[in-house]
Amino acid sequence: MSVTAPLGFEAAGVAAGIKKSGARDLALVVNRGPSRAAAAVFTSNRAQANPILWSKQVIADGEVDAVVLNSGGANCFTGQQGFQVTHRTAEAVAAALGISAGDVLVCSTGLIGDQLDGVVLEAGVALAARELSDQGGTDAARAIMTTDTVEKTAIFRGDGWAIGGMAKGAGMLAPGLATMLVVLTTDAVLGSGQLDVALREATRVSFDRLDSDGCMSTNDQVSLLSSGASGVVPDPEAFRLALVEVCTSLALQLQTDAEGSSHDISIEVLGAVTEDDAVEVGRAVARSNLFKAAVFGNDPNWGRVLAAIGTTKAPFDPYDVDVSMNGIRVCSQGQPDQPRELVDLTPRAVSVVVDLKQGGASATILTNDLTHDYVHENSAYAS
Amino acid sequence: MSVTAPLGFEAAGVAAGIKKSGARDLALVVNRGPSRAAAAVFTSNRAQANPILWSKQVIADGEVDAVVLNSGGANCFTGQQGFQVTHRTAEAVAAALGISAGDVLVCSTGLIGDQLDGVVLEAGVALAARELSDQGGTDAARAIMTTDTVEKTAIFRGDGWAIGGMAKGAGMLAPGLATMLVVLTTDAVLGSGQLDVALREATRVSFDRLDSDGCMSTNDQVSLLSSGASGVVPDPEAFRLALVEVCTSLALQLQTDAEGSSHDISIEVLGAVTEDDAVEVGRAVARSNLFKAAVFGNDPNWGRVLAAIGTTKAPFDPYDVDVSMNGIRVCSQGQPDQPRELVDLTPRAVSVVVDLKQGGASATILTNDLTHDYVHENSAYAS
Repeated sequence: MSVTAPLGFEAAGVAAGIKKSGARDLALVVNRGPSRAAAAVFTSNRAQANPILWSKQVIADGEVDAVVLNSGGANCFTGQQGFQVTHRTAEAVAAALGISAGDVLVCSTGLIGDQLDGVVLEAGVALAARELSDQGGTDAARAIMTTDTVEKTAIFRGDGWAIGGMAKGAGMLAPGLATMLVVLTTDAVLGSGQLDVALREATRVSFDRLDSDGCMSTNDQVSLLSSGASGVVPDPEAFRLALVEVCTSLALQLQTDAEGSSHDISIEVLGAVTEDDAVEVGRAVARSNLFKAAVFGNDPNWGRVLAAIGTTKAPFDPYDVDVSMNGIRVCSQGQPDQPRELVDLTPRAVSVVVDLKQGGASATILTNDLTHDYVHENSAYAS
Repeated sequence: MSVTAPLGFEAAGVAAGIKKSGARDLALVVNRGPSRAAAAVFTSNRAQANPILWSKQVIADGEVDAVVLNSGGANCFTGQQGFQVTHRTAEAVAAALGISAGDVLVCSTGLIGDQLDGVVLEAGVALAARELSDQGGTDAARAIMTTDTVEKTAIFRGDGWAIGGMAKGAGMLAPGLATMLVVLTTDAVLGSGQLDVALREATRVSFDRLDSDGCMSTNDQVSLLSSGASGVVPDPEAFRLALVEVCTSLALQLQTDAEGSSHDISIEVLGAVTEDDAVEVGRAVARSNLFKAAVFGNDPNWGRVLAAIGTTKAPFDPYDVDVSMNGIRVCSQGQPDQPRELVDLTPRAVSVVVDLKQGGASATILTNDLTHDYVHENSAYAS
C-alpha cells in the first residue's frame, strides 16, 4: 500500500521504457485532497540534479498536487536540455490530471550525466495517469527501484489518520538533510508549515543518521503530502513521533538493502558534549573503509574505530574512551579490555558503542560493511 | 642504500621476533654527526600512538642521534603500559650507543590496540646496534614493511651533499601533516630550523597530497636528520627542491604499492580560487568509494567525480565545470561532452583533470582505486 494507505491518495507504477530491462521505471503519486499542503527537503550536495532545481521551486508555496518519479536516469549534469526534460515531465503530469505543472514535484534517480528522453517520459506519464488507483502504492514503490532488491514501504495508523511512505536507495547513500527518493503521505489535517517542521525533525534523526557508503547523492528528495481526507487534526506530538517511526522504518530498510552489504552496523556514540559531536564521531567511524572492511571479515578491529574518532573535532580523551562491539567491551579507558576473540560478528546486525565520557549527548549512525559485492556492483554499474 | 646514502649515517634492519612470520621488524638509523640537527612532523590525528607522544618530546630541542622503528605493532591505544614500552625502547638504544634516550625518535607501525613486548624490543635493539653499518639502509627499509610488498627508498645527490630516505605505508594511508613512517637523512650542513622549514614545505606538497584510502593513521611520522658530514652548506633553494623530489618519489612509491590497488589515480584540480580549495576538491574525489570502485572496473563514471565535488565548500559552478579522464573531456560546462566509451582506463595510471574555472590555483591529489583485493586484505588483517 505504502503511499496509498492514507485516504485521498492514488498512485501508479509503470514500465515507461526508460530502463532497458523493461522493468517498472516511472511512478506517479497524486493527492486528491481536499488539502494540498506539502513539505519537502532536498540533498545538501551543491551539485544538484535538474529535478531538485525544479522541485525546490514547486515546494516554495507549500502546495503540491502530485509527485512524479523516474528511475533509469538521474537527470543530473545534463544542462539546460536536462532541465527542459524535467519541466516537460511536470507539464505532462499537469495535462493528464488537469492541474498546474507548478504543483508537480519531480524526482529522478539513476546514472548521472546521461540525458533522459522526454518523449519516453511523456508517454510513461500518460500511461501512469491511466493506471492511477488507491491500491497503486506498491507498484509505485517498485517503479522507483534502481539497485534496490526490494521495494521499501512503511505505514503508521494513528487515531483516525495514517501515514504512508515509500523509499528507494541502495548506493550513493549518505543523505545530507534528506535522502534518496522518499514520498510520504498522510490524510491527517495539517498545514504546510506544520508538515515542514515535522518533516525536518523526522529526517534529521532518521535518514540523516544513515551513512552507508559516505557518498552524498545529487538527487536526494523527501516529500510529505497531506490530503486532509481523514478530517482529523492529529495530536502534534503523536504525529511527530509517528513520522519519526515511519522515516526510521524506511531508513532501516534502506540500510539492510544497501549495495553488496553483509552487515548492518549501528554506531551508538554516548557521552558526547553535543549531539553534533556524537553525529560527527559516528559518521567518521561509518566512513572508515578499514573499519568497514574489517567488519566484513568478522574482525572486531576496534583500533580502526578509535583511529577514525581521532580525525574528528569532537572533544574526547584518547586515554578515557570505551568501545564495545556486540556487547563485549574490547577497549576501556583507551586500552585493550576484553579479548577481541570474544566478539562474535557473524550475525548481520553489528552494534558498536563508543562512550566518549565527555557529556550527556548521544546519537546513533547506521552504516554497512565494505564488501567484495559492493566493489563489484559499483565497478560494473554503468556498463 | 636509502638513509645511509649520505655521509655520517649508519643503519640496520633485523628480525627481533615481533612479527610471528620471523621477517625483519626492527630498524635503527644512527646519525654519527658531526651535526645532530633534526626536524620531524607528525600525524594530525588526535588519536596518537605512544611513539608519537614520545617523539614530539624528543624533537623539541631540534637534536636527534638515532631513530628506532618497529613493525609488527603500532603501540597505540595501549595506555601507560604502552608508553613505558616506547620509553624502554629508547633507553635500550641509548644504552647501546652511549647517547641520551631523549635524543632517540621512536616509530611504530602495525595493529592498533595490541601491547608490544618490551623484552623482545630490547633484545632487538641490542641486535640492531651490533649490525649497524653505513651499508645498512636497505635492510632498515625492509624492516619497517607491514603490508608493503616492496621497500621504498630514494636518494638525491646534490653538489657535494646528498639526501637519502626510506618509507613504509600501504594502508591507513591518508596522511595529515605527515605520513606513515619516513626517515630522511642528509649530510648537508643545515640547522634544525632550516630543516624544519624545508621538511614542512616538502611534506605539504608530497605526502599530504596522497590519499589512498581516506583513513588517517595514528602513527604517521616523518623525520629529517642532518649529519653535516659533507661539510657543504647547500644552496637553500636547491636543497628545498631536492627534498621535495625525494619526498615526492617516496609518495609515489607508497601510492603504487597501496593495499590491493590496481590503479594509481592522479586527480588534478585546476582553476580553483585557492590551493586549499583545490586540495579539498581533489581529496573529496579521492574519498569517493563509488568513483574509486568505478575506476577499478575501468568505468569512466565522471558523474561520481562531480557528485563528490558538490560535497565540498570550494567555489564552483555546476553548470561550468569540465572533467577529463585520461585525456578525453567527458564533461564540458557541466554537461556530457565526449562519449565515455572513448576513455581507456585499462592502464594502471589514471589521470583525472577537473577544471573549476574559478581562479588560478591548482593541486594534484594522488589516490588509488577501491578493489576486491583492498577489501580482502583489510578484512583479514588482524586474523
